[in-house]
Amino acid sequence: MPGDRLPSIRQFARTMQVSPFTVVQAYDRLAAEGGIVSRQGAGFYVTGRDLPPLSLADATTPAARAIDPFWVSRQSLDSDPEVLKPGCGWLPADWMPNEALRRAFRAVARGDNTILSDYGSTRGALRLRRLLTSRFAVEGMEISPDQVVLTGSGTQAVDLICRLLLRRGDTVLVDDPCYFNFQALLRAHEIRIVGVPYTAFGPDIEAFEQIVLQEKPRLYITNSALHNPTGATLSPPTAFRLLSAATALGLLIVEDDIFADFETAPSPRLAVMDGLEHVIRIGSFSKTLSASVRCGYIAARKELIEGLVDLQVATSFGGPSPVITEVIADVLEGGSYRKHMLEIQRRLEKSRKTVTHRLGSLGISPWTVPKAGFYLWCRLPDGQDSTDIALRSMADKIIHAPGNVFSVSQSAASFMRFNVTQCEDERIFRSLGAILAKTIPCSSM
Amino acid sequence: MPGDRLPSIRQFARTMQVSPFTVVQAYDRLAAEGGIVSRQGAGFYVTGRDLPPLSLADATTPAARAIDPFWVSRQSLDSDPEVLKPGCGWLPADWMPNEALRRAFRAVARGDNTILSDYGSTRGALRLRRLLTSRFAVEGMEISPDQVVLTGSGTQAVDLICRLLLRRGDTVLVDDPCYFNFQALLRAHEIRIVGVPYTAFGPDIEAFEQIVLQEKPRLYITNSALHNPTGATLSPPTAFRLLSAATALGLLIVEDDIFADFETAPSPRLAVMDGLEHVIRIGSFSKTLSASVRCGYIAARKELIEGLVDLQVATSFGGPSPVITEVIADVLEGGSYRKHMLEIQRRLEKSRKTVTHRLGSLGISPWTVPKAGFYLWCRLPDGQDSTDIALRSMADKIIHAPGNVFSVSQSAASFMRFNVTQCEDERIFRSLGAILAKTIPCSSM
Repeated sequence: MPGDRLPSIRQFARTMQVSPFTVVQAYDRLAAEGGIVSRQGAGFYVTGRDLPPLSLADATTPAARAIDPFWVSRQSLDSDPEVLKPGCGWLPADWMPNEALRRAFRAVARGDNTILSDYGSTRGALRLRRLLTSRFAVEGMEISPDQVVLTGSGTQAVDLICRLLLRRGDTVLVDDPCYFNFQALLRAHEIRIVGVPYTAFGPDIEAFEQIVLQEKPRLYITNSALHNPTGATLSPPTAFRLLSAATALGLLIVEDDIFADFETAPSPRLAVMDGLEHVIRIGSFSKTLSASVRCGYIAARKELIEGLVDLQVATSFGGPSPVITEVIADVLEGGSYRKHMLEIQRRLEKSRKTVTHRLGSLGISPWTVPKAGFYLWCRLPDGQDSTDIALRSMADKIIHAPGNVFSVSQSAASFMRFNVTQCEDERIFRSLGAILAKTIPCSSM
Repeated sequence: MPGDRLPSIRQFARTMQVSPFTVVQAYDRLAAEGGIVSRQGAGFYVTGRDLPPLSLADATTPAARAIDPFWVSRQSLDSDPEVLKPGCGWLPADWMPNEALRRAFRAVARGDNTILSDYGSTRGALRLRRLLTSRFAVEGMEISPDQVVLTGSGTQAVDLICRLLLRRGDTVLVDDPCYFNFQALLRAHEIRIVGVPYTAFGPDIEAFEQIVLQEKPRLYITNSALHNPTGATLSPPTAFRLLSAATALGLLIVEDDIFADFETAPSPRLAVMDGLEHVIRIGSFSKTLSASVRCGYIAARKELIEGLVDLQVATSFGGPSPVITEVIADVLEGGSYRKHMLEIQRRLEKSRKTVTHRLGSLGISPWTVPKAGFYLWCRLPDGQDSTDIALRSMADKIIHAPGNVFSVSQSAASFMRFNVTQCEDERIFRSLGAILAKTIPCSSM
């Protein structure tokens, strides 16, 4: 209430279990925005002004910090080697095309000084951009390599687009559920996030149209093929209706195609149907080639590319590392990558079956049966809470990805995303079984 | 004026020589902020509201686009191999420790799958962070590797700090002149940039205190050693007075230490004197090790690091590439790097002398004599304009760095920054001589 005195910095820090510095930052920010006022020697007081949502304050609540969109990333990226990670979003290192990578690094070691030690061009290596446009041409999307800018990663691709096109307080539409880091990224931009319910064939089109009309989002970010976390793929009629609606309503779509190379048969792509008029296509090589040799791309209308290039110069000084782009181009052009991916696709099919069966015996069943890829989006037995299970699993050194980190509406408590390639250790199922047996489901409480 | 009609999108695009899309973006933004209003079928009209400075609009003026803080970067990064680049900010590829890099890449090709294809941890490889903290300890700054986060580049380090600590409209203090990309980066954040006059011993302290009191900047970004563009180094008394003033006035300093390894004798560092209380130290390996194997770092108080790590996860998903950090650690730990840098320091000393002499014969003289490094900040003969010379030099396929791209106050028209390592081709001096001879100095017009 206006006139109320805020707790002291130390007191607030103790209550919230955060550092005094975090509180100072939050108070400073509130003061700068006029929401509170500091009275010399007498602490901080609330003013009567309306305030924008405060992301910094959000992050200081212990509940948000416990299991939030950062939780799975930070746990998975920083885990010790003995920790099991059925919740993480990548293949084990020994599934990757390591022999091709070794060959490519040996070639770099023999190669030009300019590749070894110079900056990259602002759009990134032409060789790799040409490789991408030839692949796009096979799909039916004919664009110039000038319409492609290479970035440090797929995440940086989305980040650059957000920086170019959005401002604090803008609204962005995502799928519900969606990749949790889209939420973390949009939060960092202080963007209002709105979710559209996701079906096994893509977003719910009626809901989509209604939400776009009501909420006037500036962007819609989605995966068309092998959607994260559900593994679902956009059906042709949904793709057509989605693109028609977006075109009619003047909505720009960011289509994240990061799982493309896992597909065994091609499925519809909005970017290809649309020819990059209303769609920006992004992707990376982190899931199928290497997450260490990181590089992403943006394919978009020429007018957008200029702004993205300026932004990338300002914020990263140049495009991605010439060594990295050379290694990626070498692996993609070498004959073994295609063979490797065929083998990975076969291995994944087998793995999805095995893990589905093992989870089934625990009463955990997939929401949809993915055509490819490594995700299974599963419903837990009645009354079980996935956040609760994820927290309990920490004691067994197992990191799960609970449903609500993917859900803007927080309506996925009974879901869990499993990465089948990270489920080869029997301890995962033993731990899950034990936790499920011990938990008294909410419904019977 | 309120009520005025704006030019049509096509007309404005033609006048400004930008794409209609850029204009649409600018008008959309102005409309969203209430500065203009669209009347159905009748175009856009100015409202009476006050507006924040509009970076997008700035970028659309042809003068700004012609020679602005992006100009040197984009020209240098995207130039053809035959173009000469005395204005660029890096060493030629054959000056870099390429043999050590080749050895390190061969080691990667023989190494672990996890280095080849896994994501990096959120702070970046512990091995490289430990190497950095041991170097810091030698200087007298004892910090834990947890206080270091590795980033994609030095530029990304500054960018992450700005994202964590600044909001649109905040004020940041930089040196005048300063590294042009600080301005480009701060513009991308829509930050108000204020400059402090730079002397041959560091910033002018009286002016610094006055500006900090008046303008209340949230950050001051500077290079203490081998300042870009001047090559000057902070003197011990200036360092003491600067840090005392910043501490008394509660100002946070970002000290960019990117040229550290060029120094032949140690000079004062604010971060070391201060112990990271009021200073954030950043750096990278791009100038002395490789700009292709890119990686930067931030050393800061623990409370800041957590926020930076979250931001890096949200915007890049994890720390820099394990391959890259492994290669850098290998080169730094290998015995040849120190020897290589001693040789580079000797070569630079010779090169600074030769280029100073050659420029002197054209009436171009250094503002200060740098103790080390590859920059010479030079005054042109009376009445000569460096922007004009840079534009004329394009015809000779030579890229210069004219003084005003470094100057917030645009008061460096008669200065030019030369990179001595990129001045080995006689054509540079022939071209400069011819242009200077042809130009009628303003003073005699």
